[in-house]
Amino acid sequence: MSSGKTEILVQFQKARAASRRLAAPLTDADATVQSMPDASPAKWHLAHTTWFFEAMVLEPFSRSYRVFDPNFNFLFNSYYETLGARQPRPRRGMLTRPTLEQIHAYRDHVDAAIEDLLRRETSDRVAASIELGCHHEQQHQELLLTDILHLFAQNPLRPAYLDPAPDAGGAEPTAMAYENFAGGIAESGAGDEGFAFDCERPRRRVLIEPYRLADRLVTNGEWMEFIADDGYRQPLLWLSEGWAKCLDGQWSAPLYWEERDGEFWTMTLSGFQRVDPAAPAVHISFFEADAFARWSNRRLPTEAEWERAAEPLDVEGNFVESGLMRPSPATAGQNGLRQMFGDVWEWTCSPFSPYPRFRPAEGAAGEYNGKFMCGQFVLRGGSCATPQSHMRATYRNFFPPDARWQFSGVRLAGDADDDRR
Amino acid sequence: MSSGKTEILVQFQKARAASRRLAAPLTDADATVQSMPDASPAKWHLAHTTWFFEAMVLEPFSRSYRVFDPNFNFLFNSYYETLGARQPRPRRGMLTRPTLEQIHAYRDHVDAAIEDLLRRETSDRVAASIELGCHHEQQHQELLLTDILHLFAQNPLRPAYLDPAPDAGGAEPTAMAYENFAGGIAESGAGDEGFAFDCERPRRRVLIEPYRLADRLVTNGEWMEFIADDGYRQPLLWLSEGWAKCLDGQWSAPLYWEERDGEFWTMTLSGFQRVDPAAPAVHISFFEADAFARWSNRRLPTEAEWERAAEPLDVEGNFVESGLMRPSPATAGQNGLRQMFGDVWEWTCSPFSPYPRFRPAEGAAGEYNGKFMCGQFVLRGGSCATPQSHMRATYRNFFPPDARWQFSGVRLAGDADDDRR
Amino acid sequence: MSSGKTEILVQFQKARAASRRLAAPLTDADATVQSMPDASPAKWHLAHTTWFFEAMVLEPFSRSYRVFDPNFNFLFNSYYETLGARQPRPRRGMLTRPTLEQIHAYRDHVDAAIEDLLRRETSDRVAASIELGCHHEQQHQELLLTDILHLFAQNPLRPAYLDPAPDAGGAEPTAMAYENFAGGIAESGAGDEGFAFDCERPRRRVLIEPYRLADRLVTNGEWMEFIADDGYRQPLLWLSEGWAKCLDGQWSAPLYWEERDGEFWTMTLSGFQRVDPAAPAVHISFFEADAFARWSNRRLPTEAEWERAAEPLDVEGNFVESGLMRPSPATAGQNGLRQMFGDVWEWTCSPFSPYPRFRPAEGAAGEYNGKFMCGQFVLRGGSCATPQSHMRATYRNFFPPDARWQFSGVRLAGDADDDRR
Amino acid sequence: MSSGKTEILVQFQKARAASRRLAAPLTDADATVQSMPDASPAKWHLAHTTWFFEAMVLEPFSRSYRVFDPNFNFLFNSYYETLGARQPRPRRGMLTRPTLEQIHAYRDHVDAAIEDLLRRETSDRVAASIELGCHHEQQHQELLLTDILHLFAQNPLRPAYLDPAPDAGGAEPTAMAYENFAGGIAESGAGDEGFAFDCERPRRRVLIEPYRLADRLVTNGEWMEFIADDGYRQPLLWLSEGWAKCLDGQWSAPLYWEERDGEFWTMTLSGFQRVDPAAPAVHISFFEADAFARWSNRRLPTEAEWERAAEPLDVEGNFVESGLMRPSPATAGQNGLRQMFGDVWEWTCSPFSPYPRFRPAEGAAGEYNGKFMCGQFVLRGGSCATPQSHMRATYRNFFPPDARWQFSGVRLAGDADDDRR
Repeated sequence: MSSGKTEILVQFQKARAASRRLAAPLTDADATVQSMPDASPAKWHLAHTTWFFEAMVLEPFSRSYRVFDPNFNFLFNSYYETLGARQPRPRRGMLTRPTLEQIHAYRDHVDAAIEDLLRRETSDRVAASIELGCHHEQQHQELLLTDILHLFAQNPLRPAYLDPAPDAGGAEPTAMAYENFAGGIAESGAGDEGFAFDCERPRRRVLIEPYRLADRLVTNGEWMEFIADDGYRQPLLWLSEGWAKCLDGQWSAPLYWEERDGEFWTMTLSGFQRVDPAAPAVHISFFEADAFARWSNRRLPTEAEWERAAEPLDVEGNFVESGLMRPSPATAGQNGLRQMFGDVWEWTCSPFSPYPRFRPAEGAAGEYNGKFMCGQFVLRGGSCATPQSHMRATYRNFFPPDARWQFSGVRLAGDADDDRR
Repeated sequence: MSSGKTEILVQFQKARAASRRLAAPLTDADATVQSMPDASPAKWHLAHTTWFFEAMVLEPFSRSYRVFDPNFNFLFNSYYETLGARQPRPRRGMLTRPTLEQIHAYRDHVDAAIEDLLRRETSDRVAASIELGCHHEQQHQELLLTDILHLFAQNPLRPAYLDPAPDAGGAEPTAMAYENFAGGIAESGAGDEGFAFDCERPRRRVLIEPYRLADRLVTNGEWMEFIADDGYRQPLLWLSEGWAKCLDGQWSAPLYWEERDGEFWTMTLSGFQRVDPAAPAVHISFFEADAFARWSNRRLPTEAEWERAAEPLDVEGNFVESGLMRPSPATAGQNGLRQMFGDVWEWTCSPFSPYPRFRPAEGAAGEYNGKFMCGQFVLRGGSCATPQSHMRATYRNFFPPDARWQFSGVRLAGDADDDRR
Repeated sequence: MSSGKTEILVQFQKARAASRRLAAPLTDADATVQSMPDASPAKWHLAHTTWFFEAMVLEPFSRSYRVFDPNFNFLFNSYYETLGARQPRPRRGMLTRPTLEQIHAYRDHVDAAIEDLLRRETSDRVAASIELGCHHEQQHQELLLTDILHLFAQNPLRPAYLDPAPDAGGAEPTAMAYENFAGGIAESGAGDEGFAFDCERPRRRVLIEPYRLADRLVTNGEWMEFIADDGYRQPLLWLSEGWAKCLDGQWSAPLYWEERDGEFWTMTLSGFQRVDPAAPAVHISFFEADAFARWSNRRLPTEAEWERAAEPLDVEGNFVESGLMRPSPATAGQNGLRQMFGDVWEWTCSPFSPYPRFRPAEGAAGEYNGKFMCGQFVLRGGSCATPQSHMRATYRNFFPPDARWQFSGVRLAGDADDDRR
Repeated sequence: MSSGKTEILVQFQKARAASRRLAAPLTDADATVQSMPDASPAKWHLAHTTWFFEAMVLEPFSRSYRVFDPNFNFLFNSYYETLGARQPRPRRGMLTRPTLEQIHAYRDHVDAAIEDLLRRETSDRVAASIELGCHHEQQHQELLLTDILHLFAQNPLRPAYLDPAPDAGGAEPTAMAYENFAGGIAESGAGDEGFAFDCERPRRRVLIEPYRLADRLVTNGEWMEFIADDGYRQPLLWLSEGWAKCLDGQWSAPLYWEERDGEFWTMTLSGFQRVDPAAPAVHISFFEADAFARWSNRRLPTEAEWERAAEPLDVEGNFVESGLMRPSPATAGQNGLRQMFGDVWEWTCSPFSPYPRFRPAEGAAGEYNGKFMCGQFVLRGGSCATPQSHMRATYRNFFPPDARWQFSGVRLAGDADDDRR
């Protein structure tokens, strides 16, 4: 086997093993229920990522492949019109069968077929499709975690997915400072080399005016000040549609927060926990992030501003591999930008739009990103639930402005010479 | 132990064992998912019936009883305002924990406590409460089956709860004939002796005009004629609200029916099966039953008419104990009324209203029936999913007129001298 | 012209003139807007009642009749499937054209044609159809008033349809007493003679147990006691579906009531007025009436009980002709049952069901009542918005249990020997 | 009076007179009904624009001003949180009172007060506020027309607001050609001089890549080809959310189109008319525009591309003053870009976002645009319902991507060297 193929094989096996590991604490029932239309059952994530390899790699490229179950194309296709009819998204939770065990058998079947194909097949297209499948699987690993958290948060018993890590304990957050960046024509987006999703391409020129970026994320302690200052009750701080959501959803704090005897508690993957004032605020919608920034006399960064600042940095931070699975306080004593990668996805003020000359990928993979370029905002940097190898400076995540169940938070930005405050 | 107490103990143990038996074919996932707000998860049925004994018997009558889990009162209270706040009905399916195994432990805990109480306690009130709990459990046994059928019908894999029984095979339904009944003042409702729900009491005098009753249930074959004659497309056959439901729900056949290559198939507890023309039509709403009767130049019976005809009969028929779990054709060669008990619940044209001088039971049990006396219609006779010992001639079941997921069907009635047709 | 024909002509002209008079205070805009799907614009009432004569009398019986506008059958058919497609009910308020003036021209056109037909035609069927049309028109006169009240109540300016009458002024309501009635087999329903809607027929035998009936309506003052005693906050007083509506609609008092500085005010046809404690409570749903009765340790009467008590009485009371257009206090010093006719429609506990051997009228008129016999409750006695000549002891009005915008109120009933309280 | 003041006065009087003129063909009923939550009654437009002068000019700047009616602030405030509570938007159509006549009296009252203030007051802030009010009024003039069209389209009688102009008659649309534009850093947005809305500022630098722009609008004829080629039935042409809307709304042609005997007809301000293949397609949502562009292997222009092309052009075209009130075919024989101004608003692919360093206007006017910068797309160029003096190259209109009731259409764009097709 060539070294390129070996690399892909290792990447594949790692990605597949990681999913299985993340699902390990779940019962069949945990893995079956869908807690809202935006979330999917863990079992569905495990099967859908497997189906992705079946439909995008094995079906087109392996003549000898025998489909595991012909019904699964209907059950586990997510939204690919090119690949046929499918179980309606809000009804993914009806599938008590196949069982979790059968899903694992499906995974084994497809794993063996992919490994076999990799041993036989050398084409770049196959390798590229498998690589896409691995990154796809990593995306669903994060969703599996956010969706389980949402499900467990609906249960009055507040089950814990994870044993709580020992508390960092009373860390003081460092004061927020701003890094300055010059303006000019920059390049942003992924170049031709290496893996990237189609929406990160083509690399483009972009005109940036001088700006500044906070050196750390907004903390829970700062969010409590926003609450105490009636941030959730002043319509003038909010976008009109955001204010409507705030009223309608009776928002008064980030998702999962609850006040008990004057203290804030929140649901985490380690169960119900006291909110740590030093840790980054999380489960924040774009609407809240935007209101918070306005309250702070600041704004959210554009995605180009964020990317320019992140490009020189190493992709290091609090990722899923830390096992913590919650955002943690910025380390004091460090210089410059911190928490750019990991901890929480950072909302930008950029609508998710195509880069100039964007062309969707060919075939079914062309439905991966392009058709969602409407009504969503870009988030950058990854979170405590993201696999580290999945992240890069050009990575564009996107969610609707009212989505709160992701590990999403806020880094403030400003114009270079704006001295309001 | 007195013989009365022994009887109750036997009744209790039978009822509890039956639930466990019915749940045996289900996985934890099957037992957890809620397929619609009207249905409940099997696990919830198993726990709620247990909670009923805890809240209605052990808490008030057993000083030594220790609650299994203090959260369960919130999780498994159905609708008893007297007994505190509860998990909202449409969100019963969020409870992936406790697991099915834990629910069984809960059942064991309560079973032991009830048996212990029965050994120590002799009061009639305790005995009456336990008896109520047993009948309550039997009701939920039927619901467990109808709810599982509904859940499995949502799954494109069409899982079978039960191995299909050998086909009765090509039975010819007997021709429908009518039994005539004289008019007069009759008594209906339960007397003071024996178990009955509060809504069956007090026994009342009722004035009945001469009437006739079909000697068997309406069959699938007759329903196919109704379909073929555009029964689902003629608004004049329908109540106004029923027609709106018919359009809105795109009804064109009983629930679960599907046409494939010119033949009707349907979902059953034994999986997807061909519709048997000789068997009673089932999964019929009141609206459809009423439209069918109008199309037949007949009407549905009143509950008093039905009860008067049923009172002299033995409570025998195709009940859950037959293991068939689907309605079966009327046996030819038999005289008089057939299928009055078992097979399918029979819609009457009587709204579920209180009998004169109705008083709800005391305490929390007073919320059992009385507060639902609005907007529902009475069904009589039990079904193939009802335990035989649960049924009697005075029994009043009730569902909203658009409910279709129960084992409900139609027996036609008419005025004595109505010779239309 | 025969005297029978002359009578019909007079009845026709009176009914038509009354509608015009009731519409006189309305602008074209007032007469066009639909304030909720259950209400209709005044203009629509004026046109629909005219269309009724066109479709039920002129089209079938007058060869020489020329339709005023062929579009009007679509615009002004209410719910007669027999008579073709129609403007969807919730969109009746979109019809800014034809103008009110054009509707009046339509009325004149049809009036002339009916009068012409009456002069030429002698058949009983024509006379019966015109009579039905007159009663139909009277029903819509009441609806026109309740619908205008609802519309004006949506307007923060609180316009008055009517100049307020001088206040009755501080009347003390008489104490509530009960009249006793013996049980037995009674007859109820309309006989063969005289006008009645099909649903009042055929006259039937009914078995009544001894009962008692309050001698006057429940007053606003009594309703305030119910409110003060948390009547709107105690689920155990309510039917389950009623309690859901109460929570959902945030009910805390009768429709239109508002508390200002510790006093209750309400919207009336004479604008915003202080609630008179001595006057009958009005704009009460069945659910509220039922909860109030339970709180009072009483119940609502059955329709047979009500009718039996009303049959010997003259049809006299506070009808629309008084010009007051709101319920008024029971006159003291009078003996026996008061306010049985007029003031407010009285909710009974009887679901609107067919009488034994009910047959809908022939032709399109068969859709008038029969198809609504599901999910509604019967009200008796007429209101301050009902034309006096429209009322009789056998009259069955019906509305869904959550309807509040009608002039509906409560008379309590009880079993003969029930001495709870 | 200074010449600056005279200019403002003339502008004011013109704007006010224009509204009155546009409302002239409407009855009080036409002017009262609200056909959907997104539309407002004409009467409301007339009153709201008047209230705007009251709240933004007279209240802050005129000490002697006496409010016409203190209720009107509640009734006619649109969405200004700064200015207090208001009638909920979807219930604007409940206001049958005040009458149209009273609204005109309100207008006269405010007109006199503004004219009086202008005579007395010289400050720039007053002048600026009045100017803002005039442009605000012009926006509502266009909305009044689109909302009346929508209302009349709901009426099966299909009333005409306007007498139809003589048909242009069989014009052949010119072939579509493309103008090429070089790339580079351009400036876009309004400079400091002259009137502009806050969202057009500050003028900004923008990097543009070489592009091309169609020299005319897409025609109805071309849209018919899109329909014939199953454009409304191919999910791959659509954004995901657009496809959901297309299915949900059963879209199969532009809004108001109806097929009759193989020909397309449509609702216009001149009533129901045959669709002219040579005229620009109109009543197109962003989703349809985007799908059409994808089908054409083209794309929509960015707003910067559009503005750059429009800047050198005179603001001339088919505006509301032509009296035609519908888009008309591009004139042949003309060179270069046509129809850039007037005819139809042109969807761009730019989300409505703030320009760098955008600051909302001060005070209540700050709620005018900024709070809507989420989930909407920018349209450029004005329409056949826009006042000519209201338009300029920097003007940014914005609507949600599913809005269809505006006069919105499509101009195609492409990258400079893209030779797909």
